[in-house]
Amino acid sequence: MSEPPAKKAKAEFFSSVGKIQYEGPESTNPLAFKYYSADEVIMGKPMREWCRFAVCWWHTFNGQMGTDPFSTMRTHQRSWDKDLDALATYETRVDVAFEFFTKLGVDYYCFHDCDVAPQGASLKEFQANLDRISDKLLAKQKETGVKCLWSTQNLFSHRRYKDGAATAPDFDAFAFGCAQTKKMLDIGKKLGAENHVFWGGREGFMTPLNTDVKAELAHQAAFLKMAVDYQKKIGFKAQLLVEPKPREPCAHQYDYDAQTVIGFLNSYGLEKDFKLNIEPNHTTLAGHDYEHDLRMAAACGMLGSIDCNAGQPYLGWDTDEFPSDPRKALLCMQIVIEQGGIAPGGNNFDCKLRRESIDLEDMFVAHIGGMDCLARGLRGAVRLVQEGLLKKTLEQRYLSWSTVELAKKVEAGKASFEELEAYALSKKDEPELRSGKQEQLEQLINRYI
Amino acid sequence: MSEPPAKKAKAEFFSSVGKIQYEGPESTNPLAFKYYSADEVIMGKPMREWCRFAVCWWHTFNGQMGTDPFSTMRTHQRSWDKDLDALATYETRVDVAFEFFTKLGVDYYCFHDCDVAPQGASLKEFQANLDRISDKLLAKQKETGVKCLWSTQNLFSHRRYKDGAATAPDFDAFAFGCAQTKKMLDIGKKLGAENHVFWGGREGFMTPLNTDVKAELAHQAAFLKMAVDYQKKIGFKAQLLVEPKPREPCAHQYDYDAQTVIGFLNSYGLEKDFKLNIEPNHTTLAGHDYEHDLRMAAACGMLGSIDCNAGQPYLGWDTDEFPSDPRKALLCMQIVIEQGGIAPGGNNFDCKLRRESIDLEDMFVAHIGGMDCLARGLRGAVRLVQEGLLKKTLEQRYLSWSTVELAKKVEAGKASFEELEAYALSKKDEPELRSGKQEQLEQLINRYI
Amino acid sequence: MSEPPAKKAKAEFFSSVGKIQYEGPESTNPLAFKYYSADEVIMGKPMREWCRFAVCWWHTFNGQMGTDPFSTMRTHQRSWDKDLDALATYETRVDVAFEFFTKLGVDYYCFHDCDVAPQGASLKEFQANLDRISDKLLAKQKETGVKCLWSTQNLFSHRRYKDGAATAPDFDAFAFGCAQTKKMLDIGKKLGAENHVFWGGREGFMTPLNTDVKAELAHQAAFLKMAVDYQKKIGFKAQLLVEPKPREPCAHQYDYDAQTVIGFLNSYGLEKDFKLNIEPNHTTLAGHDYEHDLRMAAACGMLGSIDCNAGQPYLGWDTDEFPSDPRKALLCMQIVIEQGGIAPGGNNFDCKLRRESIDLEDMFVAHIGGMDCLARGLRGAVRLVQEGLLKKTLEQRYLSWSTVELAKKVEAGKASFEELEAYALSKKDEPELRSGKQEQLEQLINRYI
Amino acid sequence: MSEPPAKKAKAEFFSSVGKIQYEGPESTNPLAFKYYSADEVIMGKPMREWCRFAVCWWHTFNGQMGTDPFSTMRTHQRSWDKDLDALATYETRVDVAFEFFTKLGVDYYCFHDCDVAPQGASLKEFQANLDRISDKLLAKQKETGVKCLWSTQNLFSHRRYKDGAATAPDFDAFAFGCAQTKKMLDIGKKLGAENHVFWGGREGFMTPLNTDVKAELAHQAAFLKMAVDYQKKIGFKAQLLVEPKPREPCAHQYDYDAQTVIGFLNSYGLEKDFKLNIEPNHTTLAGHDYEHDLRMAAACGMLGSIDCNAGQPYLGWDTDEFPSDPRKALLCMQIVIEQGGIAPGGNNFDCKLRRESIDLEDMFVAHIGGMDCLARGLRGAVRLVQEGLLKKTLEQRYLSWSTVELAKKVEAGKASFEELEAYALSKKDEPELRSGKQEQLEQLINRYI
Repeated sequence: MSEPPAKKAKAEFFSSVGKIQYEGPESTNPLAFKYYSADEVIMGKPMREWCRFAVCWWHTFNGQMGTDPFSTMRTHQRSWDKDLDALATYETRVDVAFEFFTKLGVDYYCFHDCDVAPQGASLKEFQANLDRISDKLLAKQKETGVKCLWSTQNLFSHRRYKDGAATAPDFDAFAFGCAQTKKMLDIGKKLGAENHVFWGGREGFMTPLNTDVKAELAHQAAFLKMAVDYQKKIGFKAQLLVEPKPREPCAHQYDYDAQTVIGFLNSYGLEKDFKLNIEPNHTTLAGHDYEHDLRMAAACGMLGSIDCNAGQPYLGWDTDEFPSDPRKALLCMQIVIEQGGIAPGGNNFDCKLRRESIDLEDMFVAHIGGMDCLARGLRGAVRLVQEGLLKKTLEQRYLSWSTVELAKKVEAGKASFEELEAYALSKKDEPELRSGKQEQLEQLINRYI
Repeated sequence: MSEPPAKKAKAEFFSSVGKIQYEGPESTNPLAFKYYSADEVIMGKPMREWCRFAVCWWHTFNGQMGTDPFSTMRTHQRSWDKDLDALATYETRVDVAFEFFTKLGVDYYCFHDCDVAPQGASLKEFQANLDRISDKLLAKQKETGVKCLWSTQNLFSHRRYKDGAATAPDFDAFAFGCAQTKKMLDIGKKLGAENHVFWGGREGFMTPLNTDVKAELAHQAAFLKMAVDYQKKIGFKAQLLVEPKPREPCAHQYDYDAQTVIGFLNSYGLEKDFKLNIEPNHTTLAGHDYEHDLRMAAACGMLGSIDCNAGQPYLGWDTDEFPSDPRKALLCMQIVIEQGGIAPGGNNFDCKLRRESIDLEDMFVAHIGGMDCLARGLRGAVRLVQEGLLKKTLEQRYLSWSTVELAKKVEAGKASFEELEAYALSKKDEPELRSGKQEQLEQLINRYI
Repeated sequence: MSEPPAKKAKAEFFSSVGKIQYEGPESTNPLAFKYYSADEVIMGKPMREWCRFAVCWWHTFNGQMGTDPFSTMRTHQRSWDKDLDALATYETRVDVAFEFFTKLGVDYYCFHDCDVAPQGASLKEFQANLDRISDKLLAKQKETGVKCLWSTQNLFSHRRYKDGAATAPDFDAFAFGCAQTKKMLDIGKKLGAENHVFWGGREGFMTPLNTDVKAELAHQAAFLKMAVDYQKKIGFKAQLLVEPKPREPCAHQYDYDAQTVIGFLNSYGLEKDFKLNIEPNHTTLAGHDYEHDLRMAAACGMLGSIDCNAGQPYLGWDTDEFPSDPRKALLCMQIVIEQGGIAPGGNNFDCKLRRESIDLEDMFVAHIGGMDCLARGLRGAVRLVQEGLLKKTLEQRYLSWSTVELAKKVEAGKASFEELEAYALSKKDEPELRSGKQEQLEQLINRYI
Repeated sequence: MSEPPAKKAKAEFFSSVGKIQYEGPESTNPLAFKYYSADEVIMGKPMREWCRFAVCWWHTFNGQMGTDPFSTMRTHQRSWDKDLDALATYETRVDVAFEFFTKLGVDYYCFHDCDVAPQGASLKEFQANLDRISDKLLAKQKETGVKCLWSTQNLFSHRRYKDGAATAPDFDAFAFGCAQTKKMLDIGKKLGAENHVFWGGREGFMTPLNTDVKAELAHQAAFLKMAVDYQKKIGFKAQLLVEPKPREPCAHQYDYDAQTVIGFLNSYGLEKDFKLNIEPNHTTLAGHDYEHDLRMAAACGMLGSIDCNAGQPYLGWDTDEFPSDPRKALLCMQIVIEQGGIAPGGNNFDCKLRRESIDLEDMFVAHIGGMDCLARGLRGAVRLVQEGLLKKTLEQRYLSWSTVELAKKVEAGKASFEELEAYALSKKDEPELRSGKQEQLEQLINRYI
């Protein structure tokens, strides 16, 4: 590193903001937590461990903040973003980032390779830049105690990946994608990343007219298989995660949603090696409710981590907003609690400040809002689970499956249609109807917000 | 049967319409074919065999035609629909239907159990009604040569299935669903049905608050497994088909789309026993292009049959319209041709006349329009495939996968990230970029409409 | 009436339920209010007057409850729904309804003509039935103090309106629609209805291929103009309301959303005679946020009444669910408070019990849930308005418009581009950017839930 | 200009492509027209005048081609785009553009101010750059005969417009927007632009929490009023056009769709001064069919010009693709023919090459495809209109409105509900129902593709 950490400490980038404190629900201070009290123990764990919050590098420190498809003119003009392409700028951002993490009070961060290091003129130069920056990241991790929740490779921004990487029609692009992934598995191991994410940005198609779907799906499976092999070989212990998204940038992406990805992993024998990283804004783009994919993944034992952002239901692109709906937060944290926590995954804020939110302080305000929203959800979900009213309703509703002998035989895979027909014909009356109680349960849920 | 076929022949229900003839593209006769010439041989098969058209019973003869959620007052008032609940009405409809099939010139029909027979007061009575009606169906099949493309059980209209059948929380509803399915497998065998369809109308949830997703998915698999067992046991040779739909009536249905269903079948070891029945209007409700699920299913070797209807992209419910877009028809028939045909499946018109189209003749006009639309697509697709311009582009685009040694090793599952990195680093330059030629291919496709 | 009211009082239809009480937020009794305390005065008015809750007749007492497009078999089988077509059944339902209103504690109800009276064999018979039933309604109103929030004519269920009424291609259908509307204006006057609603169910088109849009829009305006004339003539004081909906049953409906309807009324000089009845589920079907049309209508001084239901963002049809989202309720009630209340309009529950919610008690539970949801929203909105933090932000943001002289000239319509260019060129620097503070405001809003 | 035109002629940028020729439908040459034969006269006008094709500057020559929200790395790397910010590059692009227009054979182009000139460090500098470049544009217009279909101001890319321009909360941003618009009205006059477009890119809101909708709508009207005043003052004869778009970049934009904008213009007395510029991809984003807004605008006599692009129905953002659907093209050109043409407007290709279509020739191929698609639509629409089958159906359907006396009285605004009721009650029977013939008309339409 060019500058010793000791000197760095002097350069404060967020001088107007101190360490964010918990002030409780009545506080009107936008720079304080109202619900998130990191060390408060609820249901046997401190809140920080239930939540395992992470800041994402790409939306927060990538030098393009405040641009959008209708303007390349940044509105978030940060003092440290002077020469956007210089390695020195990337190095400075490491200091900025860890000051931010520390003052905010998150324990984790997440990044793509090209978020933290310039790609340079060649793959080789990129690798060298990554080596250098990751040294600094490692030093800052040790200095601050902040850890890497997950790292990943960006296989969608470089023009070489214009048609995808793992599913590229051109083998050379595939090979470059593998090389970049290998490097990031190495870097992840070096930094002790607790997970490693695969998001298939351009794995899909723009038009089926020029696409061999069958071949591309097979190549994607081969790619993931080699990643598993390499991870095992180097002894990297991170949980591997596939992140579904239905479209954007591609018109259709293969990893459409949770059920699709789980099915794909099962089809190719990869279901033991991967879990899912679920992003609610991707879920809603796939036409599902906000918490749907968390639920489907959890039901299949495949929920690994969460990109806890939010979209707007009537906007058809990934807006990556900070979560602000306490009802959705409740439903999400209920799922986390019911599976006993999200570790080694976490809640990564794959969120970006609105283009119009230009103040430096907005970076804190937005993250605080997101953390508080989930913390409020957590507090409610704990009460919901502990009072047990919902669970009781559920058990009652499925009671026949554990009380009727033939039902148990069905679940054991030993029943036949003949037996079931005999059972049905033996009944004098129609099955008794029972209310689904949807309205009552919706009312009950609101109790915990 | 209560009346001998000889007498039936006298009662003509569509007296204003004769056997529909092929008149060629220049005809303006709405009661003639412009593109569909059943016995014309193209690409080695008569058009009737490429198309394998079927009329569906439910939208055409169910006595509720011309109602909608905003009116229970039928607009399609047919002379034969006098006493809607009487068995005699159902029997008459068999005569009506086969006169319609014959005059229209389709070779197949499809039905649910309760389309053709009243449910009566009990399961037993329903079975008896089915036995009686299926005798008549069989007789009419023999008389006319029209065959059953597929039959299925309706497990979503009876109130006992309000929470689903295969995924019902109440075991009794599950048992009744199995009994009904068993009966329809028997009936299918009796009628020589070439396929048997499973559409999970209410298999899913209205609210996750009262749903155990994990248990329900397991029950669904158990149900399908028992269906396979029973089919084998009775020696019924039909192709089993699962039909995906993302929602409606449920807020979420488990069989969301083609990829989801294929993944589910793989996850439960059912992938060898089932193929898919794809309905484009369901595909578009799932947020995909019209022909998307045909393509995904075909790519996985799982395309079994087609419910060839159409929706409107900005209407969020299943409108079940007759196909009328020649470009979409081309893209669909291309997929059919490329897999060598759709047999033993077919193109079933799961379509209903608009509520406003009240004329008896509209029944013919609409089916003729749909048949012509697909026939036009078929004719274009044959030219597209025979000229080979699209295929050549595709082969060129993926050429590296069959020419680079390491690419072949990847496809054989024998390569490693280390080799791929070495390959990438050995390249002096970035991968050469090649145009995806989307606009050129779109222009090319239009040539065949 | 066939039976004297004195006898009726003995027949109790909801014997298991008494008058619903307020028990406060900690109550877990599904048959009690947690937030709605009708006579509690907040911000100068009792809650009942802020809320002005109404029960709708069509989803609650129409004899089709629990059917859906996939089943005509009712799941909500009520003891009083014996002979669905008999006038006596309709008369009994009046007793049922007023018992329900009274026990629930709502002050208002809403209905279409054909909800309360059978249509009979002719228009004349329908009018006679309406006269008879409205006598009974009037008597029950006097007996219970419950009032009619609004009445309306159903111009979309009878088959004669299959192509619309006010925009029907056939003039006879138009004339029947006018006759039916005239009768309901008379009935509304008789019952002292405080509003009269126009929802154009089939005013739009299924396909533009058979539609003369220009003529139909002119006919719609003529229809509304005659309604205004007739209302004035008979001295009926109700507020007239147009209810927007974008589609369903039509593929396209002319009254798409609030902005469209306001523009239409302005285009035809009807803007002084009508306000809008906004239904959030229609708003979301039009691709807007839940509370969007309330906001747009209020901004134009055109918000007259609310059909306070909810849909699901990813379901493309009108699900008419009871509101259960406290954040949305807050945003809606904020708009109501800011315009000083919703009178003479109200909050009508255009909501239906889920098909699966079959218990008689669910009718109460669902309405209580909806009322509590809005009451919670009201309580929060009062705090939000009284604390004034949001308003202060807004004033600050638009400050320049009230401080810069040229800005005031623009607002007065007296400025020119030349002056504005001169002003802009006179500035040495770019306009100062100020943060939109979206994330901070979202966090602030959550304070009031 | 730095270089004399004579020298420029030597520098050929598309040396591999000559003047594009018409070769007829059987041609497989991607660089030839199959349907568009510019000077062929049909229905009394040459095709070039029916179509009035324009190339847009922003997607074709803006130096950002081939980027997307997931990559700022251009894939369309053009030889002339060396120093992206230099005025010289902008000047060279003028030569490039006019060579492209000429070889392609379009008669028009369209541009925003900042497409053709760098914004520089101040408004003043921007004005100077525009003066300079517009001299060159004018010279090239004279040299080639290519004309300006319309020009417009970009009030959404500069960071000063982050919250809008005409609806900016900050008055200074409003003033800058007026200054920029004034300049472009001057430039439009100088270049003889036949239209002037207003697209309200950021006129709307990201969140209503910080927005005063009422004030913003009034400011927007004031802005448009001043534009009208200034246009009249300088004697600029162009047709003014408002372009609707529902969202993107804003979460909600005020000019949602055609009906909304027409209503807005009527509400503020601007309906005589403006027509609409309709972009089908915006129409579909608003939840309407592709040709819907063309139809609604034409029905109101407000269709001024067309941005003839296409989106994909299941992608929720503006993809700006080249039109390639011959059925949609038919429906659009039918509307154009029925109103006698689109002049002084035209068909502007607001379309961009796919990111993956990197070849220089793709620029031609894509435009040729779009032009051919519309030309094919035009040829079909001419036949459709001339054969008159559709028109006859329509006339028949509305016949009662011109034959029944009372109907004519309604249209004249002189009828009353009493008369209409009397008419309805005088009928012995229900109105006669007539089939809407949707399926037959859909089949008929396909005849003309």
